Formats: sequence, C-alpha cells, structure tokens
Amino acid sequence: MQTNEQLLSAIENHLAQIGFPAEPQLLYAPIGYSLAGGGKRLRPMLVMLAAGIFTDRVQAALPAAAAVEVFHNFTLLHDDIMDNASIRRGKPSVYARWGQNVAILSGDAMMICAYRLLSEVPAPLLPEILSTFNAMALEVCEGQQYDMDFEQKQKVSVVEYMHMIELKTSALLAGATVIGALVGGASEEDCRRLRRFALELGLAFQLQDDLLDSYGDERLGKAIGGDILEGKKTYLMITAMSRADEPAREVLRTAHRDASLSDAEKIARVKAIYDALDVPRLAQQQIQLRFERALAVLETLSVERARTERMRSYAESLIDRKR
Amino acid sequence: MQTNEQLLSAIENHLAQIGFPAEPQLLYAPIGYSLAGGGKRLRPMLVMLAAGIFTDRVQAALPAAAAVEVFHNFTLLHDDIMDNASIRRGKPSVYARWGQNVAILSGDAMMICAYRLLSEVPAPLLPEILSTFNAMALEVCEGQQYDMDFEQKQKVSVVEYMHMIELKTSALLAGATVIGALVGGASEEDCRRLRRFALELGLAFQLQDDLLDSYGDERLGKAIGGDILEGKKTYLMITAMSRADEPAREVLRTAHRDASLSDAEKIARVKAIYDALDVPRLAQQQIQLRFERALAVLETLSVERARTERMRSYAESLIDRKR
Repeated sequence: MQTNEQLLSAIENHLAQIGFPAEPQLLYAPIGYSLAGGGKRLRPMLVMLAAGIFTDRVQAALPAAAAVEVFHNFTLLHDDIMDNASIRRGKPSVYARWGQNVAILSGDAMMICAYRLLSEVPAPLLPEILSTFNAMALEVCEGQQYDMDFEQKQKVSVVEYMHMIELKTSALLAGATVIGALVGGASEEDCRRLRRFALELGLAFQLQDDLLDSYGDERLGKAIGGDILEGKKTYLMITAMSRADEPAREVLRTAHRDASLSDAEKIARVKAIYDALDVPRLAQQQIQLRFERALAVLETLSVERARTERMRSYAESLIDRKR
Repeated sequence: MQTNEQLLSAIENHLAQIGFPAEPQLLYAPIGYSLAGGGKRLRPMLVMLAAGIFTDRVQAALPAAAAVEVFHNFTLLHDDIMDNASIRRGKPSVYARWGQNVAILSGDAMMICAYRLLSEVPAPLLPEILSTFNAMALEVCEGQQYDMDFEQKQKVSVVEYMHMIELKTSALLAGATVIGALVGGASEEDCRRLRRFALELGLAFQLQDDLLDSYGDERLGKAIGGDILEGKKTYLMITAMSRADEPAREVLRTAHRDASLSDAEKIARVKAIYDALDVPRLAQQQIQLRFERALAVLETLSVERARTERMRSYAESLIDRKR
C-alpha cells in the first residue's frame, strides 16, 4: 500500500482531473476555486485508509474519496453564506468573491458533482454506498440546522451540543470511513464498528477544534479567540455556562458584545473564567476519552491488527494527545 | 394501466408518505410545505407515462417519479432565493416565509431526499438512472446560471435563449421521460428518441409559458404581464428586440422602469410593440413547430403505436393548439 503522501497526491490528482465545462463560467469556476483551496483532505484520506484495512487495491476507492471531499466543500460553500463568512482557508470565500447567488447555485452543482463521482463506484456496491452517502448527507444538514438553531437559543446543554457536532462533523467522517470500508469489501459488522470509530474520532476532532480556537496552536494559521468574539456556543462556552455562578455567567453571555472592551480584553475576560472553572482541562479529558474510545473500537475489527495500523497512526496524527 | 387521475393520485400518495423526521423542525417543515404546494406534477407524470410505454407494471416507477418531483421543488426553493421571489403557487415561498438560510439548507436537504428516493429504483438499473439524473440535474443548474447571466447582458439572441430554456426547463422533462423509460425497460435507442421528444415538448411548453404570461389564459391563476414588469428577457421580448427599430427598442428596454407609467401602461406599451411586430403569432408558430416535432419523434419508437397514445394525449393536454 502507498504511503500517506502517495494517497494524498492520488486524491489531489483525482480532484484536479474532474472535468468541468468552461461555460457557464460563473457556475463552474467557483467549484474549481473551492476544490483547489486545499485543506488536509481528512475525509477522502479516511475513505482511502478504511478501504486499505480490507484490500490492498485501494485505487478503486478514489472516486468515492473524491465524492466525499466534493460534498464537504459543497457544505462549506453554503455554510459560508449562512454564516456570512468572508474568509475560507485564508482566501476569500466563494460567497465573498462571487456573491450569494453564485455561491448557492455553484454549491448545488457541486453537490451534484459529488453524486456523479459516487456513481463511478463498482456497480454492485452502488445501492449500499449511495444509501450510506444519502444518510450521511442528511445528517450533515441536520447538524447545520441545529447549529443555527443554537444561535437563537438561550441555553444549550452539553448533551445537545454533542448531538449537534455528531451530526455536523462526525457524520461526514463516519460516512467517509464506512464508504471506504464498503469499497474495500468489509462486512456489515465491521462497517458498523468503523462507523462507531469515526463518530468518536469526529467528536474528539471537533472538541479539539473548539479548544484550539481559544487556546491556540501554532499548526493553525487562524487568529485565536474567533469563537469567543462571535459569542459562539462551543463546548468550552457551554461547559463554562453550566459551571459558572450568575455573575460569571453574565460576563460569558455579554462580553463579546460589550462595546467598552477591546477584542483582546473580551477574549481575556472569557478565558479567565474558562481557566477558573477548569474548562480547558475538562475539554482535554473529553477529547482523550473520545479518542481512546475510537482506538478501542478499531481493535475489535475482524482483521489482523497490522491492517489497522495505518488508520490508527493517521488518527493519532489528528489528535494531539500531549496537551 | 391506470387513468391519468389514478397515476396522479399514486404520485401524490407517494410524495405524501415520504418520511421526514419532526426535528430539526426548520429543516424538514419547509420540505413538507413545498411538496404539499401542488402544481400539476408534470415531471412525475412524464416518468410514469414513459414507463407505461414499455411496461404495464408502472408502479416500479413511482420512487423515480417522486425523486424527479422532489428535485424540481428543490430547484424552485433555491430559484426563489436567487430571484427574490416571495410568492410560489399563490402561497408565500419558503424563502419569504422562513428566510434565506432556511431556504438554502432545506433546499439542500430536499436535493438529498431526491437522491434517496432515486436509490429505491431496481438495483440493476441504478447506475444508468443515477447517471441520467446527475446529467439532468447539472443541466438544470447550467440553465439557471445562463438565465441569471442574461439579466446582466445587454443583448441575448434567440439561439442563446432557446439554449438556456433547453437546459433550464427541457432538460428536466427529458431526464424525467428517459428515467421513466429506463424503469420500463426501454432500449437505448428508444431512450434517445424519447429524450428528443421531451426536449421539444419542453421548448413548446416554455414558449407557451412566455406567451401566456403576457397574453393570459384563464387556466393560470397568475396576473398578466409579470414578465414585462420585471423587464425579463423572454422569447417575446428577445424576438421583438431583434425586429424593432431603434425607437421601439428603446421603449422595450426602458418601459418597465419608467416611473411615469402605471403598471397597466407599461404592459400596454410593450404589448403594442409585440403586436405591431407580429410577435405573438411568431411565438405561436414556434410552439406549434416544436410540439409537432415532439409528436413526430414519438411515432418513431420501436413499440406499437397504441402504446404511445397515452403520452401523446397527455402532451396534447399541455399545449394549447387552438391559439
């Protein structure tokens, strides 16, 4: 089997060679722009690595890997409209660059392109893979709707939050992993276990994302504290709200829109409360717990342990266990 | 085979029994609202009637028929955002009732639901039907983009306009008809001919829609002259622009935004030019031509003539030949 670098470059090649017509230009140019935007290609890597657990001929999984990545990028296009986000991976978002209508319609075309790639999987596997993809895609939409619902809600519980990110983030990782396993010829039982693995990994991954947004990491090119400034209900915020007394809660609720504070002060105020309530350590515990559950599920697959080694070390590279 | 009324009620039943979860409410309620909005179910009827040319067991085509109708309604949801349209079939559009973000995300979920319905077609047919559906869906997006492009363009030719409506309107009718034929077991050659039939029928249908918008018809519940008031580049407008002298052209270009005119006066001015240039008769000729071509293609199928009778009379019911 190829190295991760080789897999990644096979994915990039496959994405780069998707044929888009030149016209209508405003429909297709944003798709190419979006797919060339990089990212770590986490989801297609999961497709390839999951296939590799069950077969040495992983090339057959490339169209499905590309389909999952194109779908993911479609969700970013539409999410950026809904979130009014002008920057994506350090470049103007499609929404900011071409406007709302182009972002809506190119996004639609992109979702269709994802299904077109999916239709290239081996025909006998298509019904099962299409069903898995559809269920995954709907879950992602449900997660995005809950995320928007939370903006309007006064109080969100940790359980509700975990359910939301399981849909919005983990479902796509789980779908990718199961689809890869199906291409590799996995049994139903192994697919079920890999789904569990990826759901837990996704939760660890999203919670780490929440933690890094406020506590930073040199690997990320983003500014620190974005979630705090937006008043976003992240795992940190929700946990802090559930542990704070009323005066602290009031600060958590209002700091981000307090015009008398600078951005740095807003961030410092909120983080002081997080720190006092031990929130970063609690988040780190949750990340560790979810990650260990994920790895434990990987042990239960019906294959020799050596076959899961690549997936295990890839998962480890995603989650920083030293914090 | 059942009567058209029975087919229609089978379609309505199938649409009504699609299971949507109750939550998240803002994701799923608009889908139910949109699908309950009625319309003549033209596209699923084409699926069923096309299947009926080749088999007496048309029930198998119901999921595909529902998929095409759900996809059509998805396009309306997103088109209404892009066109800023607040009314759809006499009721508030999803966009007007729930806002832009809900219309984007519910539309996305609706497209996924269309693919979920499609995945219920008999497995051996799925690769071919999925490919047909994907190609059709992309064409519809291309048509919508060209339609938006035309709003910004000074001059649109009749050829460009016909190409646009072939993508935006006819492609969906053609996809529906071919998918129905595939479920019925049609040969590749018969599918190709039925595609031609539906493309021509779609052009006749859209040109008739353009004509009725300005010249009215008691069957339609809409106000007359909407296209003129929006300054839309319809077949009538484009044909008139290509035949008018410069003073008339100036009126055609500017009447809809002339603040000194009432709506009725704007409509009357433009229609006076249409009439003087014989535009309604030219449109009627085009409709007739396209419709006759469609019927002629139907004659060339490899089945007994009696099997195409239902489709022929349904097509006749769509196009008013007496004008």
